[in-house]
Amino acid sequence: MARPAFASWLDDTNDVTQTFLSAGQIPDLINMAGGLPEPSTWPVEDLAHLAADVIRRDPHAALAYSPIEGLPALRDAIARRFSTNGLVLTRENVLVTTGGMQALDLLGKALLEEGGVIAAQSPAYLGALDAWRPRRPTYRPMRFGSNDLDLGAAFAGAQFAYTVPNFSNPTGRLVGLAERRALIDAAETSGTWLVEDDPYGTLYFDTAPLPRMLELSGAGHSGPYDGPVVYLGTLSKELAPGFRLGWVIAAPEMIRALTTAKQGSDMCTSGLCQMMLVRAFEEGLTDRVLPQILSVYRERRDALLDAMQQHLSNLLEWDVPSGGMFVWATARDERLDTDRLLRQALSHGVCITPSSVFDPAGTDRRSIRINFTLNPADRLHEGTRRLAKAIRSTLGDGASPGH
Amino acid sequence: MARPAFASWLDDTNDVTQTFLSAGQIPDLINMAGGLPEPSTWPVEDLAHLAADVIRRDPHAALAYSPIEGLPALRDAIARRFSTNGLVLTRENVLVTTGGMQALDLLGKALLEEGGVIAAQSPAYLGALDAWRPRRPTYRPMRFGSNDLDLGAAFAGAQFAYTVPNFSNPTGRLVGLAERRALIDAAETSGTWLVEDDPYGTLYFDTAPLPRMLELSGAGHSGPYDGPVVYLGTLSKELAPGFRLGWVIAAPEMIRALTTAKQGSDMCTSGLCQMMLVRAFEEGLTDRVLPQILSVYRERRDALLDAMQQHLSNLLEWDVPSGGMFVWATARDERLDTDRLLRQALSHGVCITPSSVFDPAGTDRRSIRINFTLNPADRLHEGTRRLAKAIRSTLGDGASPGH
Repeated sequence: MARPAFASWLDDTNDVTQTFLSAGQIPDLINMAGGLPEPSTWPVEDLAHLAADVIRRDPHAALAYSPIEGLPALRDAIARRFSTNGLVLTRENVLVTTGGMQALDLLGKALLEEGGVIAAQSPAYLGALDAWRPRRPTYRPMRFGSNDLDLGAAFAGAQFAYTVPNFSNPTGRLVGLAERRALIDAAETSGTWLVEDDPYGTLYFDTAPLPRMLELSGAGHSGPYDGPVVYLGTLSKELAPGFRLGWVIAAPEMIRALTTAKQGSDMCTSGLCQMMLVRAFEEGLTDRVLPQILSVYRERRDALLDAMQQHLSNLLEWDVPSGGMFVWATARDERLDTDRLLRQALSHGVCITPSSVFDPAGTDRRSIRINFTLNPADRLHEGTRRLAKAIRSTLGDGASPGH
Repeated sequence: MARPAFASWLDDTNDVTQTFLSAGQIPDLINMAGGLPEPSTWPVEDLAHLAADVIRRDPHAALAYSPIEGLPALRDAIARRFSTNGLVLTRENVLVTTGGMQALDLLGKALLEEGGVIAAQSPAYLGALDAWRPRRPTYRPMRFGSNDLDLGAAFAGAQFAYTVPNFSNPTGRLVGLAERRALIDAAETSGTWLVEDDPYGTLYFDTAPLPRMLELSGAGHSGPYDGPVVYLGTLSKELAPGFRLGWVIAAPEMIRALTTAKQGSDMCTSGLCQMMLVRAFEEGLTDRVLPQILSVYRERRDALLDAMQQHLSNLLEWDVPSGGMFVWATARDERLDTDRLLRQALSHGVCITPSSVFDPAGTDRRSIRINFTLNPADRLHEGTRRLAKAIRSTLGDGASPGH
């Protein structure tokens, strides 16, 4: 007998994912595709000590089931850490998640019926598109910095608006202060939830951080936060991804709905990992490692941009990101199909991410995302050189199909 | 402006959940409701040492993103652990999950369209009903040991059949060997997937374990397993729940579908927790703690049954479970509504789980699930005494509504 069909959304993956998977087998590949942190920034000895210590000191918190919402000590610590003069947060505003990715999944579960509408910053984070794909949502793109941005139209009837305001994945772009205020206004006018996904919020290399939309939206209200912003944070870029720890800060009714969704998703997040974060916050470990992370990433961004200027300035154009993990570059020659470029790049020993995966419709094939955080300067330089050759050979192939 | 509505499945919770949540505030409550392990069985010092050691020895595996499917070393260890003379398992048969609960969520994502059909052992594990609720499935009940069990009818057109063959949650019942073989036959005849959810598989107190359906189904085939059984395991009952570690063993095509679903759910499971399990298996830690777990739980089961015999034999009837964590008891008086009993029990200082939460329709109100693993003998005895009073007072209330 034939087996039952899998759910149909599983067919909606694009073959770029398969291409990436096969890339793992290529020797000496320079991976500039992922969004991976530099392992040398991890305070290994501090974390080893902390892990043993939290298990010995409070075995129940570390080893038992945690409350679905997260350990009270961690929820309190996150509420304190994100409160400001104008913004009052309490434990009821906080849900602990299994990595930032789980927050996206829970939002889909709590807010989307089949085909529900999402206003999404465009291009959009691939992982968010993955998380919501099972519900087959309808996307209304928001293109910041372009002249066809109509927030009122995008927000009307949307279940939520999705943004990555700090060094957006994939574009590395900042959503400016005026745009942040406009987003909050649109959320308040339409009633729609406004998701502020902020994995790169600590990675400002050149300037002081802009205020979070959570803060702008909460300022001046008394009592615990009850506004439209749903803020998503993660430990993966601040300390290390292996703990799978993230958090949602939002109005209590949203936290309650996400908690019900989390109950049926993984019951609770690892107590061991949660207790390690409580202690890492208490002991200032995350704050202590940040300067080194910023210094390494700033230097690598500069190295990548230098190499791009040298090898790619005739082929691509790009904006200089003032933080985050990525440079977004667009082909000067509109014949360049970046899905095809990916395959050429792999055969030249370098991997980048093509724009199609950040487009819900999969049709944007003019741009690429280049990561600068994982590789040292010399590898970034060599990867850029290989990429230039791959672009020339993709365009050459395209120009003379007989090749 | 009003905020957008939450997804409608969130309204389908029953008020028993709210009643449980409020129970946390009751002083001196004896909790015989949950399925919690006894913390004194956790090898705290061994685990503290292990945690520090895996971070120091292999910081990349512990602290980086893991592959979506899980660390190869853990997948290999699980494949080895569950292979038998007749059953060949390889890494491609194994997916690591964030607790056993996540496997249920991923199954729903990979197999269920809205309203999809599930053949489910009845009564059914509450957590499974929670996991699948967002897809509003249709349930076909399978009542083992009753005369209205027609597996052919239950399996026809079902996306999968769901069973907990070892010491079922909630009934504590074993699915016998003949029933296991019949389930496999029905799966092979209909083509349907057969889910073997096995959190209590190591908790046999009195006899040698029955063979797993995974093993029965794979026996005699050469090459990696490719049969209909989807086996779900968890570390929560074998070592401790705080690691949030589970695993799926199934045909490679099922592992691939679940992996795509996991990518959009939490990206990967904590590397730290995975590495700790690799080492715990290697060093025989799980095998070493099992005898103590069995000894504590066997003694507590016996203590609960003694107390029930003394205080409840006129009020309830039950089967003696030969393992697991629960006794399932049914009212002799059919006027007893166990949802109402829960509220009375709480006011008498004891908590049990009413049968309605294990029934997809929520209409079964004759039985209760009693846990024996969390409390020592004297607390089990006192809890049972309180429960008897609560039953009498519920029946008394029912008989004289003017009370």
